[in-house]
Amino acid sequence: MINVQYKQMLGAKSVIRELSEYATKRGAEIGYENVYDYSLGNPSVPCPDGYTKAIVELHKKNPMDIHGYSPSTTLPSVREAVADSLNKRFGMDYKMDHIFMTSGAAGALSHALRAVTKPGDKVLTFAPFFPEYNPYVSGCGDELVVVPANTKDFQINIDAFKELLTEDVMAVLINTPNNPSGVVYSKETIETLADILREAQDKYGHDIFLISDEPYREILFDGQTYTYPSKYYDNTLSCYSFSKSLSLPGERIGYVAVNPRATDADLLVPMMAQISRGTGHNCPASSVQLAVAEVLEETSDLSVYETNMNILYDELVKLGFEVVRPGGTFYIFPKALEEDAVAFCKKALKYDLILVPADSFGVPGYFRMAYCIDTNKVKRSLDALRKFVSEEYGIN
Amino acid sequence: MINVQYKQMLGAKSVIRELSEYATKRGAEIGYENVYDYSLGNPSVPCPDGYTKAIVELHKKNPMDIHGYSPSTTLPSVREAVADSLNKRFGMDYKMDHIFMTSGAAGALSHALRAVTKPGDKVLTFAPFFPEYNPYVSGCGDELVVVPANTKDFQINIDAFKELLTEDVMAVLINTPNNPSGVVYSKETIETLADILREAQDKYGHDIFLISDEPYREILFDGQTYTYPSKYYDNTLSCYSFSKSLSLPGERIGYVAVNPRATDADLLVPMMAQISRGTGHNCPASSVQLAVAEVLEETSDLSVYETNMNILYDELVKLGFEVVRPGGTFYIFPKALEEDAVAFCKKALKYDLILVPADSFGVPGYFRMAYCIDTNKVKRSLDALRKFVSEEYGIN
Repeated sequence: MINVQYKQMLGAKSVIRELSEYATKRGAEIGYENVYDYSLGNPSVPCPDGYTKAIVELHKKNPMDIHGYSPSTTLPSVREAVADSLNKRFGMDYKMDHIFMTSGAAGALSHALRAVTKPGDKVLTFAPFFPEYNPYVSGCGDELVVVPANTKDFQINIDAFKELLTEDVMAVLINTPNNPSGVVYSKETIETLADILREAQDKYGHDIFLISDEPYREILFDGQTYTYPSKYYDNTLSCYSFSKSLSLPGERIGYVAVNPRATDADLLVPMMAQISRGTGHNCPASSVQLAVAEVLEETSDLSVYETNMNILYDELVKLGFEVVRPGGTFYIFPKALEEDAVAFCKKALKYDLILVPADSFGVPGYFRMAYCIDTNKVKRSLDALRKFVSEEYGIN
Repeated sequence: MINVQYKQMLGAKSVIRELSEYATKRGAEIGYENVYDYSLGNPSVPCPDGYTKAIVELHKKNPMDIHGYSPSTTLPSVREAVADSLNKRFGMDYKMDHIFMTSGAAGALSHALRAVTKPGDKVLTFAPFFPEYNPYVSGCGDELVVVPANTKDFQINIDAFKELLTEDVMAVLINTPNNPSGVVYSKETIETLADILREAQDKYGHDIFLISDEPYREILFDGQTYTYPSKYYDNTLSCYSFSKSLSLPGERIGYVAVNPRATDADLLVPMMAQISRGTGHNCPASSVQLAVAEVLEETSDLSVYETNMNILYDELVKLGFEVVRPGGTFYIFPKALEEDAVAFCKKALKYDLILVPADSFGVPGYFRMAYCIDTNKVKRSLDALRKFVSEEYGIN
């Protein structure tokens, strides 16, 4: 018999998806180049040539060597290459046994959550947050608890965090660089977070895992380096996707990296293999696993995102928007010019500006712009933006 | 905190996996060519050249056209191609909307089961059955009920089926051609099954879905054609994998095809997209989706499996084994020469014959041989087989 729970989910459409569909429809009317579509977080630059070369070379080999079943814990040679790369880059000491290849960050987060929580547990995250955390967490039978935002700089709201970190919280989910704020957690933020988690572990007498969602780790601005959360807290599961760094979102490839000093560190990957048996996730495509292992030190040309950020940030500041300068990602997160961000974004549509209200990101009154689009279009959108705020809000 | 349920699963190793590991270890000692390894159902022939050409050609295109996100219901062009191919081949009338691409049969079954059952429901299957049905079904929170085997011909045990088809059964899971028996359900079996299901739907006043697991559909012997279950019963979800037909098990690619006359036929694929959000399965790799769509009418050279079957079947019959002649797959399922098939298979190891006892397939006293191996090795294994039954059971 049809499952009513999933049937009912059909009604609730994602606001991002709806706006993106509107943009496509509007594009058919006036030409998509005239729609300033800041809705979707879809990479706008191609994958590096190295990836294409690697996958084409692989397919010249004996097919039996590249298309066979992966072991349930995923391909050993790939896990080893990922461990080596992370060790070199972040001074970690991962072994192959701590790496589990997954279908992108969605697969990584789903396995990490199931491995360290049980249905009914609380998982804590920080606003603003990626709305897909809701189905990831509820899909495990867990409850997502959201720490209100620190809107001053979108680092962590420490007091609210301490208050909400109750005994029944078994995992804390962070996302740095952050979708939607674009903010990168500072070393100080990570250290404070780790201290609070260690204190809480001692106080409550049980493990609290940090699940660190890091798909934007390679898109950093102003020459800064990444503060790798696992370096600061042993019970960390780092969840990664190559979707943004290699512009491969459709290939569904990422991993979980288990800190070697985490509780039961050597059991967690075999447990994730067991989790896969029940969900039908299994391993990511073998050829894609093998190809990314060849280009772990490469990225797409990500400089366009910083260029776009600077153009938008400067203009938004000039127009008087309250906005925190992004440290990475391809998102910016200004405060709307009226309390109701949904109304604000609706008015923007008249100027063919597709902005996403932040209610579903846990911070009403703000909006997100995904500037993974052509720089030329970003520049052309500024006129529309100026016209919009002038005509609707009298700002000149 | 570590999830105890998954941690406990680590203890229970699959007997197939254990035997396969033993075979690898033994191979290191005496040369793998001397180990008659009938343990694993891993294709032994390469994918067709057409697949390799298709994927290489795809990677010559603009990367933005092949590596982008699939819509949550998977790639429209691929779904359309699959619908067309099935319509042509089985006289169906699928539209794109009825096809959902998945990570192999495991992904297909997991989505189908979640879409048409809810936790606590009963799912009925027939012995002998693929042991991974246990985690697939229990992963949904459902209970797997096994109809005892009809060991005469391994078609369906009709009386036992009727008895076990109680009101709380919401789905029936079949696998034809069958792993492990190699038997193909006859047209008569499928028609009887469909009649019984329709009667039960009327009697109980609710839908009962038929979930048809068909990865071996293309490996048929003696020139027979396939009886496509969905043609005979409207509430059918056909689950397919290209793992065996195209020898691509590692690429994790398959689909669910929803019968257009099933209840809520147009909602089931969008529901599966919602199910994916909670499990982190998402879509299979975009490039692999696109490449298989180019070779839907092709298969690997599957003739070796029939060659191997004939050699083994003839010898087993000659040695007096009770065995049903397989109609397809790359499995054969003889009765062991003593009641305890585990003891039987253990004795076979002395002769470097790796046979899998069928206790975990739901038919104690039988064993499975997976003859997806080199024909030469099959021939060489006959001496070992003869020596084994002669020395251990006095059969000459």
